[in-house]
Amino acid sequence: MPLPFVPPPDPPLAPSPAEKLSAVAVVSGGLDSVTLCHFLASRGFFLRLLAFDYGQRHQRELEFARACAARLSSPLEVIDLSGLRPLLKGSALTDDVAVPHGHYAAPSMAATIVPNRNAIFLAAAYAWAVSSRAQLVAIGVHAGDHPVYPDCRPAFIEAFGSMQRVAVEGAGDARLSLFAPFLTLRKHDIVHLGAALGVPFQETWSCYEGGEVHCGRCGTCVERREAFELAGVPDPTAYEC
Amino acid sequence: MPLPFVPPPDPPLAPSPAEKLSAVAVVSGGLDSVTLCHFLASRGFFLRLLAFDYGQRHQRELEFARACAARLSSPLEVIDLSGLRPLLKGSALTDDVAVPHGHYAAPSMAATIVPNRNAIFLAAAYAWAVSSRAQLVAIGVHAGDHPVYPDCRPAFIEAFGSMQRVAVEGAGDARLSLFAPFLTLRKHDIVHLGAALGVPFQETWSCYEGGEVHCGRCGTCVERREAFELAGVPDPTAYEC
Repeated sequence: MPLPFVPPPDPPLAPSPAEKLSAVAVVSGGLDSVTLCHFLASRGFFLRLLAFDYGQRHQRELEFARACAARLSSPLEVIDLSGLRPLLKGSALTDDVAVPHGHYAAPSMAATIVPNRNAIFLAAAYAWAVSSRAQLVAIGVHAGDHPVYPDCRPAFIEAFGSMQRVAVEGAGDARLSLFAPFLTLRKHDIVHLGAALGVPFQETWSCYEGGEVHCGRCGTCVERREAFELAGVPDPTAYEC
Repeated sequence: MPLPFVPPPDPPLAPSPAEKLSAVAVVSGGLDSVTLCHFLASRGFFLRLLAFDYGQRHQRELEFARACAARLSSPLEVIDLSGLRPLLKGSALTDDVAVPHGHYAAPSMAATIVPNRNAIFLAAAYAWAVSSRAQLVAIGVHAGDHPVYPDCRPAFIEAFGSMQRVAVEGAGDARLSLFAPFLTLRKHDIVHLGAALGVPFQETWSCYEGGEVHCGRCGTCVERREAFELAGVPDPTAYEC
């Protein structure tokens, strides 16, 4: 039986015909960030999509970030951060360490931590938000990320937003703020929201491996499949097993 | 007459023969960051020097970052962040805007702001500090930077350190902290300190222009020359005028 659905909070500002507002959204091409983009677009925001190439094991997800940008007629920048690689040694996502199998929330997933990744991504997103005079920086972190990734927790989002208010004081739009609407949602809530918004889930990528189809075994595949089941939404994903 | 000299605070931790401690220092090759490295080395820290190539107008300062690393037998990483350029439009340091002349603290210097630069640099520095299990991230911002650059002010350094304590919780060395010993010093204090430490000032670069010698007219040249005068330290810099 599907679990009850928790909706995301409204954005802190509402665009209107009299005032266009814009958001810089950090996207990976995954289910969460693509749903985030559709959610913000449905609320009337002009979007700028920001994706990063940081020497990930594969680039499948970037294809789907591009597809999302095309669908929403939004500019996309794919920023090459592969130069950071010497600083990020030791993660399975950027280094020569095996991708762990099993459930996403398990301790083995610690191997998928890229140290300080979201701080780096969000700092770059704020730079773009200031230079483009955007009102929001948006990121799709959710409750399922919390056990393993400290930079996906509410305390981090709160601290980062506070830091940025000081860091760009007097520059950009004075209302600029950090918006993480999925922060307390679970993944099946995001699937439920995405289904209501008509997100083409087959054009999102979760798998940590870079095969033709989702592997079905890695942490994010296990989590993805489970989320569709708990949401009671048909899963269009092709899994290897 | 030279102004009185304010010394920097001690680092929050002291290396000993029993325990080696290390610091990741953000360096540009300028007078401040090179003096910062000599200061930390004099206190016994093993240093990792982190410099950035972000599409600056010139690379003279990077030569002196390399010279500093060689002098202190420290590893240096020069990270290519030129991919961030599309996000940083509108600064004289990265874009096709004239470098303003005059005093560093003047409003015209706002053209030299690269939005969110120190947040991006420090987030990358923390990534390296976590993966290398360093105890300090160090940066050479000083009181003369405050009027123009919000991300050089005490409130920013405080907020950034707080954010990072949350962002990397459970990773790296638990004592990891942000150290900005020049935060309340003025530039002539740094010159005074550097002279006492034997810093070869002729192997540092301040000028915003990329000529053979310092131009003598841009904001940092004006500030540099003034600092030597106020410190009562002979200025070995060759200026164009």
